[in-house]
Amino acid sequence: MIRFECDYAEGAHERILRRLFETNLEQTPGYGEDHYCDQARAYIRDLCRDDSLDVHFLVGGTQTNAAVITAALRPHQGVIAAVSGHINCHETGAVEAGGHKVLAVPSADGKLTALDIRRVYRAHWEDSTHEHMVQPGMVYISQPTENGTLYSRRELEEIWRTCGDCGLLLFVDGARLGYGLMSEGCDVTLPELARLCDAFYLGGTKQGLLFGEAVVLSNPVLKRDFRYIMKRQGAMLAKGRLLGVQYCAMLEDGLYFDLAKRADRLAMEIRRAFEDRGCPMLFDSYTNQQYPILPDEVLEKLEEDFAFAFWSKVDGDHTAVRVCTSWATEERAVKELIRALDRCTGD
Amino acid sequence: MIRFECDYAEGAHERILRRLFETNLEQTPGYGEDHYCDQARAYIRDLCRDDSLDVHFLVGGTQTNAAVITAALRPHQGVIAAVSGHINCHETGAVEAGGHKVLAVPSADGKLTALDIRRVYRAHWEDSTHEHMVQPGMVYISQPTENGTLYSRRELEEIWRTCGDCGLLLFVDGARLGYGLMSEGCDVTLPELARLCDAFYLGGTKQGLLFGEAVVLSNPVLKRDFRYIMKRQGAMLAKGRLLGVQYCAMLEDGLYFDLAKRADRLAMEIRRAFEDRGCPMLFDSYTNQQYPILPDEVLEKLEEDFAFAFWSKVDGDHTAVRVCTSWATEERAVKELIRALDRCTGD
Amino acid sequence: MIRFECDYAEGAHERILRRLFETNLEQTPGYGEDHYCDQARAYIRDLCRDDSLDVHFLVGGTQTNAAVITAALRPHQGVIAAVSGHINCHETGAVEAGGHKVLAVPSADGKLTALDIRRVYRAHWEDSTHEHMVQPGMVYISQPTENGTLYSRRELEEIWRTCGDCGLLLFVDGARLGYGLMSEGCDVTLPELARLCDAFYLGGTKQGLLFGEAVVLSNPVLKRDFRYIMKRQGAMLAKGRLLGVQYCAMLEDGLYFDLAKRADRLAMEIRRAFEDRGCPMLFDSYTNQQYPILPDEVLEKLEEDFAFAFWSKVDGDHTAVRVCTSWATEERAVKELIRALDRCTGD
Amino acid sequence: MIRFECDYAEGAHERILRRLFETNLEQTPGYGEDHYCDQARAYIRDLCRDDSLDVHFLVGGTQTNAAVITAALRPHQGVIAAVSGHINCHETGAVEAGGHKVLAVPSADGKLTALDIRRVYRAHWEDSTHEHMVQPGMVYISQPTENGTLYSRRELEEIWRTCGDCGLLLFVDGARLGYGLMSEGCDVTLPELARLCDAFYLGGTKQGLLFGEAVVLSNPVLKRDFRYIMKRQGAMLAKGRLLGVQYCAMLEDGLYFDLAKRADRLAMEIRRAFEDRGCPMLFDSYTNQQYPILPDEVLEKLEEDFAFAFWSKVDGDHTAVRVCTSWATEERAVKELIRALDRCTGD
Repeated sequence: MIRFECDYAEGAHERILRRLFETNLEQTPGYGEDHYCDQARAYIRDLCRDDSLDVHFLVGGTQTNAAVITAALRPHQGVIAAVSGHINCHETGAVEAGGHKVLAVPSADGKLTALDIRRVYRAHWEDSTHEHMVQPGMVYISQPTENGTLYSRRELEEIWRTCGDCGLLLFVDGARLGYGLMSEGCDVTLPELARLCDAFYLGGTKQGLLFGEAVVLSNPVLKRDFRYIMKRQGAMLAKGRLLGVQYCAMLEDGLYFDLAKRADRLAMEIRRAFEDRGCPMLFDSYTNQQYPILPDEVLEKLEEDFAFAFWSKVDGDHTAVRVCTSWATEERAVKELIRALDRCTGD
Repeated sequence: MIRFECDYAEGAHERILRRLFETNLEQTPGYGEDHYCDQARAYIRDLCRDDSLDVHFLVGGTQTNAAVITAALRPHQGVIAAVSGHINCHETGAVEAGGHKVLAVPSADGKLTALDIRRVYRAHWEDSTHEHMVQPGMVYISQPTENGTLYSRRELEEIWRTCGDCGLLLFVDGARLGYGLMSEGCDVTLPELARLCDAFYLGGTKQGLLFGEAVVLSNPVLKRDFRYIMKRQGAMLAKGRLLGVQYCAMLEDGLYFDLAKRADRLAMEIRRAFEDRGCPMLFDSYTNQQYPILPDEVLEKLEEDFAFAFWSKVDGDHTAVRVCTSWATEERAVKELIRALDRCTGD
Repeated sequence: MIRFECDYAEGAHERILRRLFETNLEQTPGYGEDHYCDQARAYIRDLCRDDSLDVHFLVGGTQTNAAVITAALRPHQGVIAAVSGHINCHETGAVEAGGHKVLAVPSADGKLTALDIRRVYRAHWEDSTHEHMVQPGMVYISQPTENGTLYSRRELEEIWRTCGDCGLLLFVDGARLGYGLMSEGCDVTLPELARLCDAFYLGGTKQGLLFGEAVVLSNPVLKRDFRYIMKRQGAMLAKGRLLGVQYCAMLEDGLYFDLAKRADRLAMEIRRAFEDRGCPMLFDSYTNQQYPILPDEVLEKLEEDFAFAFWSKVDGDHTAVRVCTSWATEERAVKELIRALDRCTGD
Repeated sequence: MIRFECDYAEGAHERILRRLFETNLEQTPGYGEDHYCDQARAYIRDLCRDDSLDVHFLVGGTQTNAAVITAALRPHQGVIAAVSGHINCHETGAVEAGGHKVLAVPSADGKLTALDIRRVYRAHWEDSTHEHMVQPGMVYISQPTENGTLYSRRELEEIWRTCGDCGLLLFVDGARLGYGLMSEGCDVTLPELARLCDAFYLGGTKQGLLFGEAVVLSNPVLKRDFRYIMKRQGAMLAKGRLLGVQYCAMLEDGLYFDLAKRADRLAMEIRRAFEDRGCPMLFDSYTNQQYPILPDEVLEKLEEDFAFAFWSKVDGDHTAVRVCTSWATEERAVKELIRALDRCTGD
């Protein structure tokens, strides 16, 4: 059985583990105040070409989202997100646990538009009893989205401008940011992204680290006392240097991006193979998550040897699945999948 | 200017004020532990024909909803409601302030169906990572809804059965319950309602009291320590007897229901007048809130002498407004409105 | 049985009820946006001699405290209060419900000192892992305290200066502020108080209104969007004009203060009577709450005809009770109490 | 510089890292549903001799405490803890973030007594307005405490019985439980502990793992939906098997306990060395944390070569510090410390 279900089924890139070994007996201060974290912060500031950024390391995505959103909003404010946004549907109400409403906007492809944002903003202020409604305070988007789709630079610029007009903070969930940045479909660079939002993170868990999310804050409101917010959320790792060591290993020579690029390439090979054999895609993704729509009989045969994540029933006899590549996917596995697809589709 | 904007523009029925005068200098214990509250509780239990019910008196609807929902749910649970439900759109996130997500379901007329509820329930449990989603724990409906529409007994029975099947509590917002129960379109009695849910309230603020909502709890889970939940919410009135005195005045001889019935009758006169003159209704309401769709030029003329609540633009030259009657509406005002409508529609 | 247990056992001063009658059928906008509330706001700004103050009307003290504290603090901040502070011991965790810790300081008389505040502040910042501790963000004091004691102008000035030095907001719970301001032991005026804090309230419930607390905000951080915070807390009264009408009735000619002064005078008569007969006071109160320590046999006899609130056992055969006067206390009742005391103490 | 500041300055025992290497490329389900976690659960149930226990793996102590307490309490309930309890003073209000008050009890040695608990319980219920107070719902103790002290079996039994009498859940913070269980001063076994509480955890972070806390739940109320609570708290690790692999490595042959025993032995050597040279201990600890009180001049000299954690000033010229051993402490380091102490104390 070869698994394409998700991008966190294995441990970590070997270099990560070697570095943990090499640094293991060194004594360092706890809670992210060690020199590895400092070095990793410097790498990230360099990559973003902005020395003024604050960088914090957390363990997982849900706690990261909760910490940033809690730091940003006053009690009566909410966060605008796509209905399919991770914070809206797969975090067991962690945002609400912090007292805030997710103002969810339907979206076919998982992306929000500047117009969506403006509409929510206007609907709030135009209501004569707007004080009876949750006030929008922040916009949450994912790059790439939970559907693998990407915001273009122009879209991001429009969203950023709209947020500025409306007094909203912009937060970009980058759990798979590497896969996004290295995609052939992406025209946004990391420094551009860093400039076009108030906060984002450079995901680690799904990009070849054991775990870890590197939060980058540019807005002073968010910077202030962010470590308190982390601690209150239970998101400050005692042996914080584990995060610093891992990010250093990944960023010192660009391994993070090389691994992402390779995974994207393999994903696109898979996409093209499906499309060439007549299987359309549910979403137009150029990143490591692909969503082919398969005849159920083809899917059934494929699933004898391969595991995918079920996504949705498209009609009576077609199903969309998620096929994920990652830093750990072997070329050989992709080739076998394509061969099997040939067999199943009767070519 | 004659106002039909809402049902809380005046003070209270005169009898209420007289009673407050008569009882004013009596010394009673605070916090709802006085004999007036006890008497009012007895009236409500009698009306519901169930001696086992717990009855508590709160000041307003938002605090009542927050208290009941907070009392009902464990931290990871949410409450299913229509998108147009009051808790979802007009309480500034009071439910989220308590840490809970509103699982909002689109609805054309403001009502939830048993099928809606079953779908949300299933979508949660069928997701392979259901622990990553908010767990449905309660269903919130309003009788009548925020659009004036009513649940039939059969609909309520289906919802109640579905909630039982799915392990969900059922909570009925009765801010305008009197107008609902006395409507010509209602086939549910108060004892039936009390039997078909875990909690509901018999609204006072919009039904002729100065303020007040009488929460009725049948489920032991909700009964337990509910007074603590009220106090924590800031919803326990020091001079609680003010609520008891008011409910006694309203319920001792059925005045509460007589006033509601009269308001419903006046609302239906208004509805028929609009319909007879070619103005359709946005919602099929048989209660004190009516939503005629008017040509903008007619609306403009009417608004010289009458105030309505803007509801929505229906198309380029038609607008829906809310026309409310209440315990305080005068027959004369309704007649004048109909006469004015005649003039404006050119009859 | 004559009751001295508390200052909220009766309804309201007769003028309040008359005004509610007179204004009853007037139609006004809801939620505190009516002309009565505006007039009451003007009275309060005049009394404070500061036109820049924001004034909001809420129903009860617990919801008022929760709203102001929630509006003031970021998530990781807490509020410094005396252990005996109302928010710490008698609000069922309403502050914690908003996510904030009460940083409680022991106090013999219910008052905080500038030194107490500085100590909590320093203990936080001097801890090498201060990010692991709740950050002080606000100071909460009551004037008069829950023990009837008063802050002098000088004490308030020191506290205010200390708060400024430490970047802490200062909030004064004024549930019984009238009794405080009119006390012979008080050297702080209302304009001085308004200048020496960021927020306070002029209590109504315990001062002769049916209910109501008038929050006065001077700090722009608190002013911003305070109505949202009120609504989220369930603390925005639909028929808000009921609060405006009541405060107008009380403030238009100083009735609020006259009633408080009278109650203070009666309380001091009671205090002196107890002291003259050898009963010491548990707290040195000059306001409407007195705390005599009585031999248990005397107390037992007194309680045949009078009701007090039990406060604490002082030793094996002495008990401290709270004796409260209010706007409603009759001279005759005080005289009877003193006569009974004479009989019981065997004079 | 040799560091005795804390027990989390290094990475992890070498076996942990080797196991992560060996299992690195295996594909497993995420979120703790893998076979390593299952195996680790089986080890823990065996060690506790109770097959009915639920075991969950979390990353750090603060998130673990928050998750268990949130799972246990209804909104109006609080948790009784010593003032020096970790949840009360070093978690930035994580318990309050969940809406609950810590009912803090002063304690000289960091321990609660059965009598303390009974007093808090009684004070709540005897107050005539108990609904105005936070209701005690759980007791939190640490074994060993934050001061290194230990509960005896008899003390635990009394606390457990008291909790039963009062309807309170008992939760034992075991961040350093291994050091506690293996101490010469401990007469409680793991199966006994598991039987004498509703929930506890077997700490990993401070006991030689990279990170990790294994929560053990016996009470059905806590077991129900605990994974939802973890996820909502942001405490469900995506690559959950990292926790399973580590606990397996530590528990398969008792390494966890061997390392703890060795650290305790070294700590006791240090304690005796200080005591023999006339330095008393601030707390009577038999575990890996020791708190000697040193003349400031001795401390100053020692700190040229050794690092300790400052604890408190004891008087004008004496200071208490914390000296920690751990799984990583070398015998040689302890010998050097003792030699240096000899020099400094002039022997």
